[in-house]
Amino acid sequence: MESRQLIDRRHLDFVLDEVLGVDDLCRYARFAEHSRETFGAALSLAQQIALDKFLPHNRKSDLNEPHMVDGKVVLIAEIGEAVAAFCEAGFSAVLADAGRGGMQLPFVVAAAADGMFCSANAATIAYPTLARAAANLLEVYASEEQKRLYMQPILEGRYFGTMCLSEPQAGSSLADLKTTASPRDDGSYAISGAKMWISAGDHELGENIVHLVLARIEGAPAGVRGISLFIVPRWRVNADGSRGARNDVTLAGLNHKMGQRGSVNTFLKFGESGDCAGYLVGTAHQGLAQMFHMMNEERIGVGLSAIQQAAIGYQYSLDYARERRQGRHPDQKDPSTPALALIEHADVRRMLLQQKCYVEGGQMLAYDAALLVDRQHDPDDSVRRDSAALLELLTPIVKAWLSDYALRANDLAIQIFGGYGYTRDYPVEQCYRDNRINPIHEGTNGIQALDLLGRKALMHDGAALKILAARIAASCAEAAAIAELAPLSRQLGQALVLVRDTTQAVAARLGQGEVRLALANAGHYLHLLGHVVVAWGWLRMAVTAQRALAAGNADSAFYQGKVQACRHFFAAELPQVELAAKLVASAEASAYDMRDSWF
Amino acid sequence: MESRQLIDRRHLDFVLDEVLGVDDLCRYARFAEHSRETFGAALSLAQQIALDKFLPHNRKSDLNEPHMVDGKVVLIAEIGEAVAAFCEAGFSAVLADAGRGGMQLPFVVAAAADGMFCSANAATIAYPTLARAAANLLEVYASEEQKRLYMQPILEGRYFGTMCLSEPQAGSSLADLKTTASPRDDGSYAISGAKMWISAGDHELGENIVHLVLARIEGAPAGVRGISLFIVPRWRVNADGSRGARNDVTLAGLNHKMGQRGSVNTFLKFGESGDCAGYLVGTAHQGLAQMFHMMNEERIGVGLSAIQQAAIGYQYSLDYARERRQGRHPDQKDPSTPALALIEHADVRRMLLQQKCYVEGGQMLAYDAALLVDRQHDPDDSVRRDSAALLELLTPIVKAWLSDYALRANDLAIQIFGGYGYTRDYPVEQCYRDNRINPIHEGTNGIQALDLLGRKALMHDGAALKILAARIAASCAEAAAIAELAPLSRQLGQALVLVRDTTQAVAARLGQGEVRLALANAGHYLHLLGHVVVAWGWLRMAVTAQRALAAGNADSAFYQGKVQACRHFFAAELPQVELAAKLVASAEASAYDMRDSWF
Repeated sequence: MESRQLIDRRHLDFVLDEVLGVDDLCRYARFAEHSRETFGAALSLAQQIALDKFLPHNRKSDLNEPHMVDGKVVLIAEIGEAVAAFCEAGFSAVLADAGRGGMQLPFVVAAAADGMFCSANAATIAYPTLARAAANLLEVYASEEQKRLYMQPILEGRYFGTMCLSEPQAGSSLADLKTTASPRDDGSYAISGAKMWISAGDHELGENIVHLVLARIEGAPAGVRGISLFIVPRWRVNADGSRGARNDVTLAGLNHKMGQRGSVNTFLKFGESGDCAGYLVGTAHQGLAQMFHMMNEERIGVGLSAIQQAAIGYQYSLDYARERRQGRHPDQKDPSTPALALIEHADVRRMLLQQKCYVEGGQMLAYDAALLVDRQHDPDDSVRRDSAALLELLTPIVKAWLSDYALRANDLAIQIFGGYGYTRDYPVEQCYRDNRINPIHEGTNGIQALDLLGRKALMHDGAALKILAARIAASCAEAAAIAELAPLSRQLGQALVLVRDTTQAVAARLGQGEVRLALANAGHYLHLLGHVVVAWGWLRMAVTAQRALAAGNADSAFYQGKVQACRHFFAAELPQVELAAKLVASAEASAYDMRDSWF
Repeated sequence: MESRQLIDRRHLDFVLDEVLGVDDLCRYARFAEHSRETFGAALSLAQQIALDKFLPHNRKSDLNEPHMVDGKVVLIAEIGEAVAAFCEAGFSAVLADAGRGGMQLPFVVAAAADGMFCSANAATIAYPTLARAAANLLEVYASEEQKRLYMQPILEGRYFGTMCLSEPQAGSSLADLKTTASPRDDGSYAISGAKMWISAGDHELGENIVHLVLARIEGAPAGVRGISLFIVPRWRVNADGSRGARNDVTLAGLNHKMGQRGSVNTFLKFGESGDCAGYLVGTAHQGLAQMFHMMNEERIGVGLSAIQQAAIGYQYSLDYARERRQGRHPDQKDPSTPALALIEHADVRRMLLQQKCYVEGGQMLAYDAALLVDRQHDPDDSVRRDSAALLELLTPIVKAWLSDYALRANDLAIQIFGGYGYTRDYPVEQCYRDNRINPIHEGTNGIQALDLLGRKALMHDGAALKILAARIAASCAEAAAIAELAPLSRQLGQALVLVRDTTQAVAARLGQGEVRLALANAGHYLHLLGHVVVAWGWLRMAVTAQRALAAGNADSAFYQGKVQACRHFFAAELPQVELAAKLVASAEASAYDMRDSWF
């Protein structure tokens, strides 16, 4: 198929421009130099680089995994070429201030641009986006000197970066991390420890790698309150910015993964020779808060990356279902009639529509959440406050719901391809493998669910949930005025009542001190609230589409598709919330009560 | 972990002996020489060979895919050694008559033995079991001369075999196959065509490969009524059984798969030089019926193989969850307390119990269906008739439900392992990849659903469904008498009403000629009936377990686990049937009405 069709730009523009109206951001001082046109130009540039430089080596980098030669990581050349194109086009500084050479684009536009690279090649895009995440963190917490030495070269595409959190014995549980930092006379720290699962932890793509390392300063409190954040460069940097000697960071091994094979994943040791220099970022013992400052944006990135793999799998399977001819209708067995295109089979059409529901509904949610990040630039205090609260609430849903349902979408894409889908000659099995990491990393989806129910849904007396409910109710009111959507509006309203009642039941149980039992079905709660917010997104898309249809827009097939997908989500998906709500509200305990010896 | 724990023999014995009472089969003339002890001995032998010869090279054969050297397929040596051990122990003739040197075991016991090999190494076991399937077919339809020349050497482990159905342009749609057979003067046929997805299609494991090929005799009717079955040996065989010249069968290519990489999958060409000899099996134009004679057993085999990959993934993740320590309870954040074993976290325990529900419930269904195959040896006509009808009904469910939920189980196993689960250093990612083929091959799960709703559920005025309903009602009556299970009995009774009403709604719509719409939600119907029959299996296991507990059986933890898993399935899974039933009964049409141009 034509590679341009692999990225559904029409849908993206629909969500950003017609539904979310992101050009509204241009009234903020930060984005005053921008316009709908500059947003569109950035997206077009990203699309072109994604298709020209990232997509073509997606399979090749899967087949030619990074490996070590003489202690150095060897990547296929195309990865470096793609990363260079990304940086040269300015995407390494897409969010950064214009004063630092950045594009100073809104987060939502940058996320949409990233999404195209994620669709094209989830492994290669990890190198520059991890670097950029490190730069974003330094922008907030580092000293001006640190910014000059370590952040600016990342923005320029010369340095790369990592986030070093996990250790072999402590993946999700940062309270248990053991890497230590001992103060030295020159103000730096000697870092000692081992870090696991470090993506892009070693390679030769740039002049240096800036590791952001969580460690404990000697004598620090136990647990997460004793964690500090350090800059640990692979090569030391002289005061004039020139490269000094190698720092004591050792590549101890490579992890061999199910997918995302082009993205090197490393086991790193710090201070094996006792001379690993680290530089404290900001205040001591604030490391976790500093990392978590970036976490909402990182987790939106994970959800979006997942759904973008689902999006390209959907496009591949849609194209295949239109071209491949096989079988006949159940009431038409005459073998002399021509075989049907797969898309004509009801079950194949259902698998395509289900993918469309997950993909486009998931994208809508991700961009909606991303827009909340940009609302922090709104001049109105209350807008900033409400947006921040809502973002906190939606983030675990974006991370977990999108990564769960993105995998379901990829699974459906494989099924549509049949036996061919199971082979490495077709792209969809790689989509699944590349995507399978997303429910795991940046906090497993189980942890997201605990974050949602144990913290976000109930914090400040449920303030964030009330904001969400008010916005959903407002959308329902809009939809109620459109005859075709009125029944869907009522259905979503009922689901909202279910959310309220279920949350209150949990709050009551927590109030009685039954914390463990009350949170035992947190996963079902995430499913409940996730389906409700995705349904909300679909209803808003349907309202926009129905208005375009009523106005006689020429692109009627496109808009009909939105309305029909909304109907499908409300018919086949949204009713699932009833069981989820029942399990949570009743604190159904069959798994909770199960004993180890009974397995 | 100790490899013996990887196969849960205790559960297998529970299902076969305590719940199903398979030793009842020994009263049939065919199994009169057998006893519970001989069944157990066969299973122990299979378990030992599976763990000693199949499991150890499971990863190695994944990493060292079959490849071609000088036109020959090269496999790692361990595959040949494992297959030889399998054949030497008599499993190549496990079902065959004692008079032919076979073990003459019941199908259900053979299936349980096969299941152990499937858990240990799904790729390697394909070689001898495909051969055995070919032999089973020849036993029914071939001439004595053909049996002597082609079947007997398979039973002896000297020859291998394949099933050649699919073609590049016709996977699921056999009506469209194009391979031709032209009669020759010597009574043989010249075969010409290409066959795709042929597992074990070429290798050097034995003296010969017997391809069973579907082809059209020149002038045959169009569609499936013009298909005949041919023996096409890789090497011709002389009348005295000695090997003759190479037949005109060419290895045209290897398929490179997501998983099951140790099992070579080939693209074969027949008659490229115009001299491919094929030998008609049985009567002309009966090929599809002949193949389908074996199809119930093959499809039970697919479902069982899938659930056995789920079973070993469950055992791996259970073991890991007991050993790995990580994090603390949500109400216990003190970092000085020791980290918990993963199994102590409510969400991990839920993921383990969910796997247990799918795995053990799926195995119960598979063995129950396998037992119906053996009921064909019952002296009572009505038992044979009812068993055959029920087997027809359950087969698509065994194939599709088990393969769908086995993948969900493997997905949960990966999630429990966290980042490690995503690496190839741990076994669960391979379980998923190996397992992903099962919803596709031997008829996609979409086709199974059409077979179930469009044919099996309604055939003979719903006779098979009535037999099933009567048996479920009988189990409900038994459970109703046990206080702990009475609520579950009522719940299953209500689900049964839902099945009846839903089926009647479909029948009414079919009666009005709305065939396509009535069958459009067949997948949801399979989910509905699948969940009901698995719940039925769980209720029967719970009845047996509750009785053992009441009798003061010392193994109480084991039986408590069965009762608890049953409760979990009824609480979290069975209620899903309500939505499925609603979609089917109302002929929900959002996907059906979706147009190609709207995507």
